[in-house]
Amino acid sequence: MTATASLARYLVSAKAGGLPGWTLHEAKRTLINLLGVSLSASVMPAARIMLEWAAAEAAAPRASVIGSGLRTSPATAALLNGYLAHLQDYDDTHFPTVLHPTAPVWPAVLAAAEDTGASGREACAAFVLGAEAACRVAMSVHPWHYDAGWHITGTAGPFGAAAGAGRLLGLSAEQMTHALGVAGTQAGGVREVFGSDSKAMHPAKGAANGLQAAQLAKAGFTSADDILGGRRGFWAVLSAAGHSEEQLLGGLGERWELANNGLKPYANGVVSHPIQDAVIQLRNEHGLRPEQVTAIHARVNPLVLELMDRPQPRRGLEGKFSFQHCAAAALIDGAGHDAQFSDERVADAAIAALRALVSATPDEAMGEDQVHVAISLVDGRTVETQIEHATGSPGNPLTDEALEAKYRAIATPVIGKERAEKLLAAAWALDGAPDVGEVASLMVVVDA
Amino acid sequence: MTATASLARYLVSAKAGGLPGWTLHEAKRTLINLLGVSLSASVMPAARIMLEWAAAEAAAPRASVIGSGLRTSPATAALLNGYLAHLQDYDDTHFPTVLHPTAPVWPAVLAAAEDTGASGREACAAFVLGAEAACRVAMSVHPWHYDAGWHITGTAGPFGAAAGAGRLLGLSAEQMTHALGVAGTQAGGVREVFGSDSKAMHPAKGAANGLQAAQLAKAGFTSADDILGGRRGFWAVLSAAGHSEEQLLGGLGERWELANNGLKPYANGVVSHPIQDAVIQLRNEHGLRPEQVTAIHARVNPLVLELMDRPQPRRGLEGKFSFQHCAAAALIDGAGHDAQFSDERVADAAIAALRALVSATPDEAMGEDQVHVAISLVDGRTVETQIEHATGSPGNPLTDEALEAKYRAIATPVIGKERAEKLLAAAWALDGAPDVGEVASLMVVVDA
Repeated sequence: MTATASLARYLVSAKAGGLPGWTLHEAKRTLINLLGVSLSASVMPAARIMLEWAAAEAAAPRASVIGSGLRTSPATAALLNGYLAHLQDYDDTHFPTVLHPTAPVWPAVLAAAEDTGASGREACAAFVLGAEAACRVAMSVHPWHYDAGWHITGTAGPFGAAAGAGRLLGLSAEQMTHALGVAGTQAGGVREVFGSDSKAMHPAKGAANGLQAAQLAKAGFTSADDILGGRRGFWAVLSAAGHSEEQLLGGLGERWELANNGLKPYANGVVSHPIQDAVIQLRNEHGLRPEQVTAIHARVNPLVLELMDRPQPRRGLEGKFSFQHCAAAALIDGAGHDAQFSDERVADAAIAALRALVSATPDEAMGEDQVHVAISLVDGRTVETQIEHATGSPGNPLTDEALEAKYRAIATPVIGKERAEKLLAAAWALDGAPDVGEVASLMVVVDA
Repeated sequence: MTATASLARYLVSAKAGGLPGWTLHEAKRTLINLLGVSLSASVMPAARIMLEWAAAEAAAPRASVIGSGLRTSPATAALLNGYLAHLQDYDDTHFPTVLHPTAPVWPAVLAAAEDTGASGREACAAFVLGAEAACRVAMSVHPWHYDAGWHITGTAGPFGAAAGAGRLLGLSAEQMTHALGVAGTQAGGVREVFGSDSKAMHPAKGAANGLQAAQLAKAGFTSADDILGGRRGFWAVLSAAGHSEEQLLGGLGERWELANNGLKPYANGVVSHPIQDAVIQLRNEHGLRPEQVTAIHARVNPLVLELMDRPQPRRGLEGKFSFQHCAAAALIDGAGHDAQFSDERVADAAIAALRALVSATPDEAMGEDQVHVAISLVDGRTVETQIEHATGSPGNPLTDEALEAKYRAIATPVIGKERAEKLLAAAWALDGAPDVGEVASLMVVVDA
């Protein structure tokens, strides 16, 4: 049996009831995270361009688009929701591969579930299996593939979307093999477009192409027998420097890659997350106010200075890659959501004054998720702390409470408190819901 | 200026009136060829699956799908028409790169033209420039890229589609740069899927993604500044073994790659085309009937035996890769259209008997477009001929008359003689037409 056929057989034969309970809980957590970041992204200019494009398509209203009044075809809804999920780079990260698994997979699953009337539990299981497929395809080519310049979310993502949607469409093993083939031959996305509106197009197309692949395969459309392992297939062409079949197939159904998937607590570059953890912890412990502070000094992994040493950011996007801004905003606001990275907030005088007091020293002994922070105060005291594993890393997952806080902070401004709370409750209840209808009807903006 | 920006500037600033007249004539020839092969393909099972998928999308009726009653969004029409154009591998070939330029480019141009009301001449010019962009992107990475396993029609195609559609949408140079970026980061398609329904998905997605890229760029959507030449762009990631900026940009506006593009006279593997030319020539010159023939012997380029030595094909698709079948059908039918490659025709007793009399000897001195054929007859005579450049190769382009004969042979069975003739006349008149409406309204099947 080929590598692709082995994966396909597992994907169609795994029982939803056989999945560990924590994976279904993680499916709901990633969904809540997705809903928050997508609602937050839905007001951005690039999102509006995509929404207008989709509205002009005027496809049959069979699936819902987050944060808009638009109902459209499953493929177009998957495209839009996949786009929104990744637009602010505030979604989840599979730490071993830097794949963002939720953005291509949940939108495909959600659209297929809405279109087919699948139960909430089936949808959660389809996400778990789709995410597993995407992560394992990613691991099978890591690190060679990413190092070659590919955006792994655009290349491994379509496999996961096809797997998740294919589960809900009830594909046979052979159909799933073909669905993975149709999706896999559309793997694409180069890192050159990072920093532009096009980066989030990669999971967007991953979601839409994967869903369409499952739809076509269900109708009998064919592809390669082994899109992954074939002589001119995914491994040979997109990862010529190396691949691992063991990483794809080893321990399927026994170990779960969602265990290595982290939800971001802060909407900025990941390397400064330990600093923000430390500053917020000291702020809350000691009730610190900015006027008390004379210096914030951090001992950091060298990557922080390499990637995020930007003492005077001029715009919101630059603020996301300034550890000085991240630390200052963390002390004043106690957070690092999108609100802390607006152009206005970056230009704010109080934050700018505090930024000037932030410094860092590289320390090879510090891990990427570690930091030591000391804050000097006007009364001569110094308060300090060390973070061993930053929030949202596999060693220190975001708690459900912290996830809810993140969700509320970014969803409420878009859909209001009452609706945001109802949607949160519906998402937590999804695995017992008869279908995804309640989530779908609450995640939209009615008067858009 | 970056490589991509240089190409973009040329694409938006070239004047339709400055294009050589023969390129506009070639645009019409490729369109007629496209219409024929797409009508012929529209009845195939994989085409029906795609059509049903598109019908269920039920997008706004702004553009027409060849050989169907479906009107849909421009992107979906481009997807379907790009699929049909390549499904039978009977479209055109850019000989230096084996790119099939028409399948991704004309469908994007046609849909954009129908949607915007562009003139026929503007549409033809947009095709010429889009095909030029696709061919030059292909040449810039050839042969390294194809040898690595990429289907170059799926990877260079989106650039051509974005270029052609972008012309009709009136993009600025900057917008065209972004459109090429959005399209280029979706370049994909591996050769592993050859022989399956998925191969034609490559130009299909190329057409649709390129068109969408132009639409999004027009609305202000951004991408990389240099999708081709950037450090992690198309050249670096999809053609690490080599690339040539000179092949992309050298002599832009002076030499035209449509000069190196050939229209296939026969619906089968290209290496046996010289044999078919020779057999049909001898058949017509001497009025040969199968019962007169005792042997057909060819001296051929060695590739013929390597790729197409299949004395007893069992199905239509195998017949397309059997030089014995191609030669026998050429003698009996005087043609090599789809009708000669049906399962029935391959099983036909008279053809099978003649196939057994066909043989070939490899000859290193024979070029790929050359052959010597001798036919021995029951009366003891032997008639023979040598072909120097097979029909449809750059050295011997398909004549307009032969193109019309091909078109009629494959279009008439699908839409009838009257409609086929009207469509042919409308296509020949396109560069003087106020818009593409007449072609679009004639290429559909009204009662589908």
